[in-house]
Amino acid sequence: MDIFFSASIRGGRDDVDLYADLVTRLEQYGTVLTEHVGTEDVETEQADVGLTDGDIHDQDVAWLRRAGAVVAEVTTPSLGVGYELGRAVAWEKPVLALYRPDGEHELSAGARQRRCRRRRVRNARGR
Amino acid sequence: MDIFFSASIRGGRDDVDLYADLVTRLEQYGTVLTEHVGTEDVETEQADVGLTDGDIHDQDVAWLRRAGAVVAEVTTPSLGVGYELGRAVAWEKPVLALYRPDGEHELSAGARQRRCRRRRVRNARGR
Repeated sequence: MDIFFSASIRGGRDDVDLYADLVTRLEQYGTVLTEHVGTEDVETEQADVGLTDGDIHDQDVAWLRRAGAVVAEVTTPSLGVGYELGRAVAWEKPVLALYRPDGEHELSAGARQRRCRRRRVRNARGR
Repeated sequence: MDIFFSASIRGGRDDVDLYADLVTRLEQYGTVLTEHVGTEDVETEQADVGLTDGDIHDQDVAWLRRAGAVVAEVTTPSLGVGYELGRAVAWEKPVLALYRPDGEHELSAGARQRRCRRRRVRNARGR
């Protein structure tokens, strides 16, 4: 199964180690189309290969459309993650939203009510 | 025309005065369905009238569907705003995304590339 993993990039990268851990775990269940989300220097790498914002968006939307399931880490508020969830819901994709209740921000009403299977995410480094 | 105004609620309310100013300006062009987004105590008010997260989501999505145009203030990263933009784009609604370039966060690639008419937002209080 193709899995679309979504997590904050420009909204904040404090949890990038957690994202990398989640990508590794998800790879047990299928192909993670967006494994770069767990890469420390994702933005530099995208710039190095000449990806424009338009390229990044179009590639993400194409992967999202192809995915059989969407997994999002939503603790760090992110416009991009929200956008991807909105598109995924419109396409009626199954969505799993992961949230750490001890994070700095409250979860949006929309994310809370979507009745996604929410799980407390354990940080691999025990932070 | 019915206008859906979207801005951060749980992602952070630092710009609430700006949101109120934008709602006032938008009211010159039509009916702002979501004027509460510019209200200081929006969460308390929603709780006082007994709105659950599910009620809030369903009401927002119904208003979004009804709106003839969507205006979003995207400077403060917000899962909810992103989600609403994703749903709006899926419904092919016209979207105007407003962003202050002097904000703390970079704008997501998705928001940048959507070729929305982006405008520098002037804070009414000159901050």
